Amino acid sequence: MRRHRCNQVVRSDSETESESDAETMRCLSCKEEYAARDAGTCKECYEEAGETEEELKREIEDLKAKVAFLRFWSPLDHAHRGSPTSPGPVFPDVVLVAYDDGSPGLPPVPVPAHKAVLVNRSPVFKAMLENEMEESRSGTIKISDVSYDALRAFVNYLYTAEAWLDEQMACDLLVLAEKYHVKHLKGFCEKFLVSKLNWDNSLLTYAFAHQHGAKLVLDAALSLITDNMDKLTKKEEYMELVEKDPRLVVEIYEAYLSKQVNTAVHKDT
Amino acid sequence: MRRHRCNQVVRSDSETESESDAETMRCLSCKEEYAARDAGTCKECYEEAGETEEELKREIEDLKAKVAFLRFWSPLDHAHRGSPTSPGPVFPDVVLVAYDDGSPGLPPVPVPAHKAVLVNRSPVFKAMLENEMEESRSGTIKISDVSYDALRAFVNYLYTAEAWLDEQMACDLLVLAEKYHVKHLKGFCEKFLVSKLNWDNSLLTYAFAHQHGAKLVLDAALSLITDNMDKLTKKEEYMELVEKDPRLVVEIYEAYLSKQVNTAVHKDT
Repeated sequence: MRRHRCNQVVRSDSETESESDAETMRCLSCKEEYAARDAGTCKECYEEAGETEEELKREIEDLKAKVAFLRFWSPLDHAHRGSPTSPGPVFPDVVLVAYDDGSPGLPPVPVPAHKAVLVNRSPVFKAMLENEMEESRSGTIKISDVSYDALRAFVNYLYTAEAWLDEQMACDLLVLAEKYHVKHLKGFCEKFLVSKLNWDNSLLTYAFAHQHGAKLVLDAALSLITDNMDKLTKKEEYMELVEKDPRLVVEIYEAYLSKQVNTAVHKDT
Repeated sequence: MRRHRCNQVVRSDSETESESDAETMRCLSCKEEYAARDAGTCKECYEEAGETEEELKREIEDLKAKVAFLRFWSPLDHAHRGSPTSPGPVFPDVVLVAYDDGSPGLPPVPVPAHKAVLVNRSPVFKAMLENEMEESRSGTIKISDVSYDALRAFVNYLYTAEAWLDEQMACDLLVLAEKYHVKHLKGFCEKFLVSKLNWDNSLLTYAFAHQHGAKLVLDAALSLITDNMDKLTKKEEYMELVEKDPRLVVEIYEAYLSKQVNTAVHKDT
Protein backbone atom coordinates (compact mmCIF):
# COMPACT_ATOMS: atom_id res chain seq x y z
CA MET A 1 0.00 0.00 0.00
CA ARG A 2 2.90 2.40 0.37
CA ARG A 3 3.06 3.79 -3.14
CA HIS A 4 -0.31 3.30 -4.81
CA ARG A 5 -1.11 6.32 -6.89
CA CYS A 6 -4.22 7.53 -5.13
CA ASN A 7 -4.63 10.98 -6.74
CA GLN A 8 -3.19 14.44 -6.30
CA VAL A 9 -3.90 14.09 -2.64
CA VAL A 10 -0.82 11.96 -2.20
CA ARG A 11 2.14 14.27 -2.14
CA SER A 12 4.78 13.72 -4.77
CA ASP A 13 7.46 14.47 -2.18
CA SER A 14 5.90 12.47 0.60
CA GLU A 15 7.48 9.12 0.07
CA THR A 16 9.27 9.26 3.38
CA GLU A 17 6.28 10.57 5.31
CA SER A 18 3.73 8.38 6.97
CA GLU A 19 0.62 7.69 4.96
CA SER A 20 -1.73 9.44 7.35
CA ASP A 21 0.31 12.63 7.19
CA ALA A 22 0.31 12.63 3.44
CA GLU A 23 -3.30 11.80 2.90
CA THR A 24 -5.27 13.55 5.59
CA MET A 25 -6.78 16.95 4.94
CA ARG A 26 -7.47 19.05 7.91
CA CYS A 27 -9.53 22.21 7.67
CA LEU A 28 -7.42 25.17 8.78
CA SER A 29 -10.50 26.86 10.16
CA CYS A 30 -12.44 24.25 12.16
CA LYS A 31 -9.44 21.85 12.51
CA GLU A 32 -11.61 18.87 11.54
CA GLU A 33 -10.58 16.33 8.93
CA TYR A 34 -12.58 16.35 5.73
CA ALA A 35 -13.02 14.38 2.53
CA ALA A 36 -12.54 15.54 -1.05
CA ARG A 37 -16.24 16.06 -1.66
CA ASP A 38 -16.29 18.43 1.31
CA ALA A 39 -13.36 20.46 0.00
CA GLY A 40 -13.73 24.21 0.35
CA THR A 41 -10.69 26.22 -0.60
CA CYS A 42 -7.01 25.69 -1.11
CA LYS A 43 -4.58 27.15 1.41
CA GLU A 44 -3.75 30.18 -0.69
CA CYS A 45 -7.37 31.22 -1.06
CA TYR A 46 -7.95 30.54 2.63
CA GLU A 47 -5.15 32.91 3.55
CA GLU A 48 -6.35 35.53 1.09
CA ALA A 49 -9.87 35.30 2.51
CA GLY A 50 -8.42 35.80 5.98
CA GLU A 51 -6.64 38.94 4.83
CA THR A 52 -9.78 40.23 3.16
CA GLU A 53 -11.71 39.68 6.38
CA GLU A 54 -9.06 41.56 8.37
CA GLU A 55 -9.22 44.44 5.89
CA LEU A 56 -13.00 44.60 6.08
CA LYS A 57 -12.82 44.62 9.87
CA ARG A 58 -10.30 47.46 9.80
CA GLU A 59 -12.56 49.39 7.45
CA ILE A 60 -15.44 48.87 9.87
CA GLU A 61 -13.36 50.18 12.77
CA ASP A 62 -12.40 53.25 10.71
CA LEU A 63 -16.00 53.92 9.74
CA LYS A 64 -17.18 53.51 13.33
CA ALA A 65 -14.60 56.06 14.46
CA LYS A 66 -15.80 58.40 11.73
CA VAL A 67 -19.41 58.00 12.86
CA ALA A 68 -18.37 58.68 16.45
CA PHE A 69 -16.58 61.83 15.31
CA LEU A 70 -19.40 63.13 13.10
CA ARG A 71 -22.15 62.20 15.52
CA PHE A 72 -23.45 65.14 17.51
CA TRP A 73 -24.40 65.22 21.09
CA SER A 74 -28.04 65.92 20.87
CA PRO A 75 -29.00 69.24 22.50
CA LEU A 76 -31.38 67.09 24.52
CA ASP A 77 -28.67 64.74 25.81
CA HIS A 78 -26.68 67.74 26.75
CA ALA A 79 -29.41 69.35 28.81
CA HIS A 80 -29.62 66.10 30.75
CA ARG A 81 -25.92 65.83 31.31
CA GLY A 82 -25.44 69.30 32.75
CA SER A 83 -26.37 70.08 36.34
CA PRO A 84 -29.86 71.55 36.90
CA THR A 85 -28.39 74.91 37.91
CA SER A 86 -25.95 75.04 35.01
CA PRO A 87 -27.12 72.98 32.08
CA GLY A 88 -24.55 74.77 29.92
CA PRO A 89 -25.50 76.68 26.82
CA VAL A 90 -25.38 74.74 23.57
CA PHE A 91 -26.38 77.64 21.34
CA PRO A 92 -29.69 76.36 20.00
CA ASP A 93 -31.24 78.89 17.62
CA VAL A 94 -34.60 77.27 16.93
CA VAL A 95 -37.22 75.22 18.79
CA LEU A 96 -39.59 72.56 17.51
CA VAL A 97 -43.01 72.23 19.09
CA ALA A 98 -45.50 69.37 18.91
CA TYR A 99 -48.40 71.77 18.84
CA ASP A 100 -51.33 69.39 18.92
CA ASP A 101 -50.02 66.33 20.62
CA GLY A 102 -53.36 65.56 22.24
CA SER A 103 -52.39 66.34 25.84
CA PRO A 104 -55.07 68.86 26.87
CA GLY A 105 -54.34 71.94 28.92
CA LEU A 106 -50.58 71.79 29.31
CA PRO A 107 -48.51 74.07 27.09
CA PRO A 108 -46.31 72.09 24.72
CA VAL A 109 -42.66 71.57 25.73
CA PRO A 110 -40.34 72.99 23.06
CA VAL A 111 -37.52 70.83 21.72
CA PRO A 112 -34.39 72.96 21.16
CA ALA A 113 -32.25 72.49 18.05
CA HIS A 114 -29.84 74.17 15.65
CA LYS A 115 -30.97 75.52 12.31
CA ALA A 116 -27.66 74.40 10.80
CA VAL A 117 -28.35 70.78 11.77
CA LEU A 118 -31.98 70.76 10.64
CA VAL A 119 -31.05 72.35 7.30
CA ASN A 120 -28.27 69.82 6.79
CA ARG A 121 -30.40 66.76 7.46
CA SER A 122 -33.70 67.64 5.79
CA PRO A 123 -34.41 69.41 2.49
CA VAL A 124 -37.81 70.40 3.87
CA PHE A 125 -36.30 72.19 6.87
CA LYS A 126 -33.76 73.67 4.47
CA ALA A 127 -36.45 75.23 2.29
CA MET A 128 -38.37 76.34 5.36
CA LEU A 129 -35.46 77.99 7.16
CA GLU A 130 -33.45 79.41 4.30
CA ASN A 131 -36.36 81.13 2.65
CA GLU A 132 -37.28 83.52 5.43
CA MET A 133 -40.56 81.85 6.11
CA GLU A 134 -42.55 82.30 9.30
CA GLU A 135 -40.53 79.53 11.01
CA SER A 136 -37.22 81.19 10.24
CA ARG A 137 -38.34 84.57 11.57
CA SER A 138 -39.98 83.26 14.73
CA GLY A 139 -37.40 80.56 15.45
CA THR A 140 -40.26 78.16 16.18
CA ILE A 141 -41.23 75.20 14.02
CA LYS A 142 -44.66 73.83 14.80
CA ILE A 143 -45.20 70.18 13.98
CA SER A 144 -48.68 68.73 13.97
CA ASP A 145 -49.99 65.23 14.68
CA VAL A 146 -46.99 64.09 16.64
CA SER A 147 -46.36 63.25 20.27
CA TYR A 148 -43.70 65.07 22.26
CA ASP A 149 -41.80 61.79 22.65
CA ALA A 150 -41.74 61.12 18.92
CA LEU A 151 -40.66 64.68 18.14
CA ARG A 152 -37.88 64.41 20.70
CA ALA A 153 -36.71 61.10 19.24
CA PHE A 154 -36.88 62.62 15.75
CA VAL A 155 -34.68 65.58 16.68
CA ASN A 156 -32.33 63.25 18.53
CA TYR A 157 -31.96 61.12 15.40
CA LEU A 158 -31.02 64.15 13.32
CA TYR A 159 -28.05 64.67 15.64
CA THR A 160 -26.99 61.11 16.34
CA ALA A 161 -28.40 58.76 13.64
CA GLU A 162 -29.68 56.64 16.53
CA ALA A 163 -33.09 55.91 17.95
CA TRP A 164 -34.65 53.49 20.34
CA LEU A 165 -37.56 51.88 18.47
CA ASP A 166 -40.64 49.90 19.28
CA GLU A 167 -43.30 49.37 16.63
CA GLN A 168 -45.26 52.51 17.54
CA MET A 169 -42.14 54.69 17.60
CA ALA A 170 -40.93 53.22 14.29
CA CYS A 171 -44.27 54.17 12.69
CA ASP A 172 -44.24 57.66 14.23
CA LEU A 173 -40.67 58.32 13.12
CA LEU A 174 -41.30 56.91 9.64
CA VAL A 175 -44.14 59.39 9.22
CA LEU A 176 -41.91 62.29 10.32
CA ALA A 177 -39.05 61.02 8.14
CA GLU A 178 -41.36 60.95 5.13
CA LYS A 179 -42.78 64.40 5.88
CA TYR A 180 -39.33 66.00 6.25
CA HIS A 181 -37.56 63.85 3.64
CA VAL A 182 -35.06 62.31 6.05
CA LYS A 183 -34.24 59.25 3.94
CA HIS A 184 -31.77 57.68 6.33
CA LEU A 185 -34.29 57.64 9.16
CA LYS A 186 -36.99 56.28 6.88
CA GLY A 187 -34.73 53.37 5.90
CA PHE A 188 -33.88 52.77 9.56
CA CYS A 189 -37.57 52.53 10.50
CA GLU A 190 -38.41 50.40 7.46
CA LYS A 191 -35.77 47.80 8.36
CA PHE A 192 -37.13 47.66 11.88
CA LEU A 193 -40.73 47.21 10.72
CA VAL A 194 -39.72 44.45 8.29
CA SER A 195 -37.98 42.66 11.16
CA LYS A 196 -41.20 42.82 13.19
CA LEU A 197 -43.48 41.71 10.37
CA ASN A 198 -45.66 38.66 11.06
CA TRP A 199 -48.96 37.22 9.92
CA ASP A 200 -50.91 38.95 12.68
CA ASN A 201 -49.74 42.45 11.81
CA SER A 202 -49.26 41.88 8.07
CA LEU A 203 -52.41 43.59 6.78
CA LEU A 204 -52.15 46.65 9.02
CA THR A 205 -48.44 46.94 8.20
CA TYR A 206 -49.25 46.61 4.50
CA ALA A 207 -51.82 49.43 4.69
CA PHE A 208 -49.45 51.63 6.69
CA ALA A 209 -46.58 51.03 4.27
CA HIS A 210 -48.87 51.85 1.36
CA GLN A 211 -49.99 55.11 2.91
CA HIS A 212 -46.44 56.30 3.58
CA GLY A 213 -44.62 55.00 0.50
CA ALA A 214 -42.47 52.60 2.52
CA LYS A 215 -41.48 50.33 -0.36
CA LEU A 216 -39.27 47.93 1.61
CA VAL A 217 -42.04 47.26 4.12
CA LEU A 218 -44.69 47.13 1.42
CA ASP A 219 -42.87 44.45 -0.56
CA ALA A 220 -42.16 42.36 2.52
CA ALA A 221 -45.77 42.56 3.71
CA LEU A 222 -47.16 41.78 0.27
CA SER A 223 -44.89 38.78 -0.07
CA LEU A 224 -46.01 37.43 3.31
CA ILE A 225 -49.68 37.97 2.51
CA THR A 226 -49.56 36.40 -0.95
CA ASP A 227 -47.82 33.36 0.55
CA ASN A 228 -50.83 32.85 2.81
CA MET A 229 -53.81 33.61 0.55
CA ASP A 230 -55.78 30.64 1.90
CA LYS A 231 -55.97 32.35 5.30
CA LEU A 232 -56.44 35.91 4.04
CA THR A 233 -60.21 36.25 3.83
CA LYS A 234 -60.60 34.83 7.34
CA LYS A 235 -58.67 37.71 8.85
CA GLU A 236 -60.67 40.31 10.73
CA GLU A 237 -58.61 43.16 9.26
CA TYR A 238 -59.33 41.88 5.76
CA MET A 239 -63.00 42.83 5.91
CA GLU A 240 -62.11 46.18 7.46
CA LEU A 241 -59.70 46.89 4.63
CA VAL A 242 -62.27 45.91 1.97
CA GLU A 243 -64.64 48.42 3.59
CA LYS A 244 -62.11 51.18 4.11
CA ASP A 245 -59.78 50.99 1.13
CA PRO A 246 -60.76 48.31 -1.40
CA ARG A 247 -58.08 49.44 -3.86
CA LEU A 248 -55.43 48.13 -1.48
CA VAL A 249 -57.18 44.75 -1.46
CA VAL A 250 -57.25 44.76 -5.25
CA GLU A 251 -53.50 45.31 -5.26
CA ILE A 252 -53.05 42.25 -3.07
CA TYR A 253 -54.97 40.09 -5.56
CA GLU A 254 -53.04 41.59 -8.45
CA ALA A 255 -49.75 40.79 -6.72
CA TYR A 256 -50.96 37.24 -6.04
CA LEU A 257 -51.94 36.73 -9.67
CA SER A 258 -48.67 38.07 -10.94
CA LYS A 259 -46.81 35.75 -8.56
CA GLN A 260 -48.79 32.75 -9.85
CA VAL A 261 -48.03 33.64 -13.45
CA ASN A 262 -44.34 34.06 -12.66
CA THR A 263 -44.22 30.74 -10.85
CA ALA A 264 -45.89 29.02 -13.81
CA VAL A 265 -43.43 30.55 -16.28
CA HIS A 266 -40.56 29.54 -14.01
CA LYS A 267 -41.81 25.94 -13.88
CA ASP A 268 -42.23 25.78 -17.67
CA THR A 269 -38.68 26.88 -18.29
CA MET B 1 -7.87 0.03 -8.11
CA ARG B 2 -11.61 0.62 -7.70
CA ARG B 3 -11.99 0.13 -3.99
CA HIS B 4 -8.62 0.58 -2.38
CA ARG B 5 -9.08 2.36 0.92
CA CYS B 6 -7.04 5.47 0.24
CA ASN B 7 -8.23 7.68 3.10
CA GLN B 8 -11.20 9.90 3.84
CA VAL B 9 -10.75 11.42 0.43
CA VAL B 10 -12.39 8.45 -1.26
CA ARG B 11 -16.11 8.76 -0.73
CA SER B 12 -17.84 5.86 0.90
CA ASP B 13 -20.77 6.38 -1.47
CA SER B 14 -18.67 6.92 -4.57
CA GLU B 15 -18.46 3.41 -5.93
CA THR B 16 -20.37 4.29 -9.05
CA GLU B 17 -18.61 7.57 -9.63
CA SER B 18 -15.53 7.92 -11.76
CA GLU B 19 -12.29 7.98 -9.84
CA SER B 20 -11.38 11.48 -10.86
CA ASP B 21 -14.69 12.82 -9.53
CA ALA B 22 -14.23 11.12 -6.22
CA GLU B 23 -10.60 11.94 -5.67
CA THR B 24 -10.02 15.39 -7.09
CA MET B 25 -10.20 18.42 -4.85
CA ARG B 26 -11.04 21.62 -6.50
CA CYS B 27 -10.85 24.92 -4.67
CA LEU B 28 -14.28 26.53 -4.63
CA SER B 29 -12.72 29.96 -4.72
CA CYS B 30 -9.99 29.87 -7.41
CA LYS B 31 -11.37 26.73 -9.13
CA GLU B 32 -7.89 25.17 -9.29
CA GLU B 33 -7.17 21.65 -8.21
CA TYR B 34 -5.04 21.26 -5.12
CA ALA B 35 -3.25 18.62 -3.09
CA ALA B 36 -3.78 17.68 0.55
CA ARG B 37 -0.83 19.66 1.80
CA ASP B 38 -2.37 22.75 0.20
CA ALA B 39 -5.72 22.20 1.87
CA GLY B 40 -7.34 25.34 3.26
CA THR B 41 -10.83 24.86 4.59
CA CYS B 42 -13.64 22.39 4.36
CA LYS B 43 -16.76 23.33 2.43
CA GLU B 44 -18.77 24.23 5.52
CA CYS B 45 -16.16 26.68 6.77
CA TYR B 46 -15.79 28.09 3.26
CA GLU B 47 -19.51 28.82 3.14
CA GLU B 48 -19.51 30.29 6.62
CA ALA B 49 -16.59 32.54 5.70
CA GLY B 50 -18.54 33.68 2.64
CA GLU B 51 -21.51 34.59 4.81
CA THR B 52 -19.29 36.43 7.27
CA GLU B 53 -17.79 38.43 4.40
CA GLU B 54 -21.26 39.32 3.12
CA GLU B 55 -22.27 40.43 6.61
CA LEU B 56 -19.16 42.57 7.00
CA LYS B 57 -19.82 44.17 3.62
CA ARG B 58 -23.40 44.94 4.59
CA GLU B 59 -22.17 46.49 7.83
CA ILE B 60 -19.75 48.64 5.82
CA GLU B 61 -22.58 49.82 3.56
CA ASP B 62 -24.70 50.69 6.60
CA LEU B 63 -21.85 52.59 8.22
CA LYS B 64 -21.10 54.47 5.00
CA ALA B 65 -24.73 55.54 4.77
CA LYS B 66 -24.57 56.68 8.39
CA VAL B 67 -21.43 58.72 7.69
CA ALA B 68 -23.12 60.29 4.67
CA PHE B 69 -26.11 61.20 6.84
CA LEU B 70 -24.10 62.61 9.75
CA ARG B 71 -21.60 64.40 7.55
CA PHE B 72 -22.25 68.12 7.26
CA TRP B 73 -22.00 70.29 4.25
CA SER B 74 -19.24 72.55 5.24
CA PRO B 75 -20.28 76.21 5.41
CA LEU B 76 -17.42 76.72 2.95
CA ASP B 77 -18.70 74.19 0.43
CA HIS B 78 -22.03 75.82 0.65
CA ALA B 79 -20.77 79.28 -0.13
CA HIS B 80 -19.21 77.80 -3.25
CA ARG B 81 -22.31 76.01 -4.32
CA GLY B 82 -24.59 79.04 -4.11
CA SER B 83 -24.55 81.70 -6.79
CA PRO B 84 -22.32 84.73 -6.08
CA THR B 85 -25.33 87.02 -5.70
CA SER B 86 -27.18 84.61 -3.45
CA PRO B 87 -24.86 82.28 -1.59
CA GLY B 88 -27.75 81.35 0.71
CA PRO B 89 -27.59 81.83 4.45
CA VAL B 90 -26.30 78.88 6.44
CA PHE B 91 -26.63 80.52 9.84
CA PRO B 92 -23.00 80.70 10.89
CA ASP B 93 -22.65 82.28 14.34
CA VAL B 94 -18.87 82.50 14.65
CA VAL B 95 -15.86 83.15 12.42
CA LEU B 96 -12.31 81.83 12.66
CA VAL B 97 -9.45 84.04 11.55
CA ALA B 98 -5.84 83.13 10.75
CA TYR B 99 -4.58 86.35 12.23
CA ASP B 100 -0.90 86.12 11.47
CA ASP B 101 -0.68 83.93 8.46
CA GLY B 102 2.31 85.78 7.09
CA SER B 103 0.59 87.49 4.15
CA PRO B 104 1.44 91.14 4.73
CA GLY B 105 -0.98 93.99 4.25
CA LEU B 106 -4.16 92.15 3.33
CA PRO B 107 -6.79 91.78 6.04
CA PRO B 108 -7.33 88.11 6.95
CA VAL B 109 -10.30 86.34 5.35
CA PRO B 110 -12.64 85.01 8.04
CA VAL B 111 -13.77 81.37 7.89
CA PRO B 112 -17.43 81.11 8.95
CA ALA B 113 -18.59 78.28 11.21
CA HIS B 114 -21.18 77.22 13.78
CA LYS B 115 -20.44 77.29 17.48
CA ALA B 116 -22.48 74.12 17.90
CA VAL B 117 -20.19 72.23 15.51
CA LEU B 118 -16.95 73.56 16.98
CA VAL B 119 -18.09 72.77 20.51
CA ASN B 120 -19.10 69.28 19.49
CA ARG B 121 -15.82 68.41 17.79
CA SER B 122 -13.24 69.99 20.08
CA PRO B 123 -13.07 70.17 23.88
CA VAL B 124 -10.87 73.27 23.52
CA PHE B 125 -13.48 75.14 21.48
CA LYS B 126 -16.06 73.87 23.96
CA ALA B 127 -14.27 75.41 26.92
CA MET B 128 -13.63 78.59 24.95
CA LEU B 129 -17.18 79.11 23.71
CA GLU B 130 -19.23 77.84 26.62
CA ASN B 131 -17.39 79.86 29.23
CA GLU B 132 -18.21 83.33 27.97
CA MET B 133 -14.65 84.07 27.05
CA GLU B 134 -13.62 86.81 24.68
CA GLU B 135 -14.16 84.53 21.66
CA SER B 136 -17.71 83.73 22.67
CA ARG B 137 -18.65 87.38 23.16
CA SER B 138 -17.03 88.65 19.99
CA GLY B 139 -17.97 85.70 17.80
CA THR B 140 -14.41 85.69 16.44
CA ILE B 141 -11.78 83.05 17.14
CA LYS B 142 -8.26 84.15 16.27
CA ILE B 143 -5.84 81.38 15.42
CA SER B 144 -2.14 82.08 15.21
CA ASP B 145 0.65 80.49 13.16
CA VAL B 146 -1.61 78.98 10.56
CA SER B 147 -2.22 79.66 6.88
CA TYR B 148 -5.68 80.52 5.60
CA ASP B 149 -5.68 77.31 3.53
CA ALA B 150 -4.87 75.13 6.53
CA LEU B 151 -7.50 76.87 8.68
CA ARG B 152 -10.05 76.39 5.94
CA ALA B 153 -9.18 72.70 5.62
CA PHE B 154 -9.34 72.35 9.41
CA VAL B 155 -12.83 73.82 9.63
CA ASN B 156 -13.90 71.74 6.66
CA TYR B 157 -12.72 68.58 8.42
CA LEU B 158 -14.77 69.41 11.51
CA TYR B 159 -17.87 69.30 9.29
CA THR B 160 -17.05 66.45 6.96
CA ALA B 161 -14.31 64.25 8.47
CA GLU B 162 -12.55 64.63 5.12
CA ALA B 163 -9.47 66.47 3.95
CA TRP B 164 -7.23 66.53 0.93
CA LEU B 165 -3.69 66.02 2.24
CA ASP B 166 -0.17 66.48 1.03
CA GLU B 167 2.72 66.28 3.47
CA GLN B 168 2.67 70.00 4.32
CA MET B 169 -1.09 70.03 4.85
CA ALA B 170 -0.92 66.85 6.97
CA CYS B 171 1.65 68.54 9.23
CA ASP B 172 -0.35 71.78 9.44
CA LEU B 173 -3.56 69.95 10.26
CA LEU B 174 -1.84 67.69 12.78
CA VAL B 175 -0.62 70.79 14.63
CA LEU B 176 -4.14 72.25 14.68
CA ALA B 177 -5.63 68.88 15.68
CA GLU B 178 -3.22 68.68 18.59
CA LYS B 179 -3.86 72.27 19.67
CA TYR B 180 -7.65 71.86 19.63
CA HIS B 181 -7.72 68.21 20.74
CA VAL B 182 -9.39 66.87 17.62
CA LYS B 183 -8.25 63.26 18.01
CA HIS B 184 -9.90 61.91 14.89
CA LEU B 185 -8.11 64.43 12.66
CA LYS B 186 -4.81 63.80 14.41
CA GLY B 187 -5.11 60.08 13.69
CA PHE B 188 -6.04 60.82 10.09
CA CYS B 189 -2.91 62.95 9.59
CA GLU B 190 -0.70 60.47 11.42
CA LYS B 191 -1.76 57.61 9.15
CA PHE B 192 -1.02 59.76 6.12
CA LEU B 193 2.44 60.74 7.39
CA VAL B 194 3.30 57.13 8.17
CA SER B 195 2.33 56.19 4.60
CA LYS B 196 4.71 58.87 3.27
CA LEU B 197 7.60 57.95 5.55
CA ASN B 198 10.91 57.13 3.82
CA TRP B 199 14.60 57.26 4.57
CA ASP B 200 14.99 60.77 3.16
CA ASN B 201 12.35 62.35 5.38
CA SER B 202 12.76 60.01 8.36
CA LEU B 203 14.75 62.31 10.65
CA LEU B 204 12.66 65.41 10.04
CA THR B 205 9.49 63.38 10.44
CA TYR B 206 10.85 61.91 13.66
CA ALA B 207 11.61 65.36 15.08
CA PHE B 208 8.19 66.66 14.02
CA ALA B 209 6.39 63.67 15.53
CA HIS B 210 8.34 64.15 18.75
CA GLN B 211 7.43 67.80 18.99
CA HIS B 212 3.72 67.16 18.50
CA GLY B 213 3.25 63.91 20.41
CA ALA B 214 2.33 61.97 17.27
CA LYS B 215 3.05 58.51 18.67
CA LEU B 216 2.10 56.50 15.60
CA VAL B 217 4.45 58.53 13.38
CA LEU B 218 7.15 58.58 16.04
CA ASP B 219 7.21 54.79 16.37
CA ALA B 220 7.25 54.27 12.61
CA ALA B 221 10.05 56.78 12.08
CA LEU B 222 12.10 55.40 14.95
CA SER B 223 11.74 51.88 13.62
CA LEU B 224 12.89 52.97 10.14
CA ILE B 225 15.86 54.89 11.55
CA THR B 226 17.05 52.13 13.88
CA ASP B 227 16.87 49.68 10.97
CA ASN B 228 19.40 51.84 9.12
CA MET B 229 21.85 52.90 11.81
CA ASP B 230 24.84 52.33 9.53
CA LYS B 231 23.66 55.21 7.33
CA LEU B 232 22.44 57.50 10.10
CA THR B 233 25.50 59.57 10.90
CA LYS B 234 26.07 60.30 7.22
CA LYS B 235 22.74 62.11 6.96
CA GLU B 236 22.88 65.90 6.72
CA GLU B 237 19.90 66.26 9.06
CA TYR B 238 21.65 64.12 11.64
CA MET B 239 24.28 66.75 12.42
CA GLU B 240 21.61 69.45 12.44
CA LEU B 241 19.60 67.48 14.96
CA VAL B 242 22.65 66.88 17.18
CA GLU B 243 23.16 70.64 17.21
CA LYS B 244 19.56 71.63 17.68
CA ASP B 245 18.08 68.96 19.91
CA PRO B 246 20.62 66.35 21.05
CA ARG B 247 18.12 64.71 23.42
CA LEU B 248 16.20 63.48 20.38
CA VAL B 249 19.38 61.90 19.06
CA VAL B 250 19.98 60.24 22.41
CA GLU B 251 16.51 58.73 22.20
CA ILE B 252 17.35 57.24 18.82
CA TYR B 253 20.43 55.52 20.29
CA GLU B 254 18.43 54.33 23.28
CA ALA B 255 15.80 52.85 20.98
CA TYR B 256 18.53 51.17 18.93
CA LEU B 257 20.14 49.68 22.03
CA SER B 258 16.84 48.42 23.35
CA LYS B 259 16.10 46.84 19.96
CA GLN B 260 19.48 45.07 19.98
CA VAL B 261 18.89 43.71 23.48
CA ASN B 262 15.41 42.50 22.51
CA THR B 263 16.73 40.80 19.39
CA ALA B 264 19.43 39.06 21.44
CA VAL B 265 16.92 37.82 24.01
CA HIS B 266 14.68 36.65 21.19
CA LYS B 267 17.53 34.70 19.60
CA ASP B 268 18.48 33.08 22.92
CA THR B 269 14.99 31.78 23.52
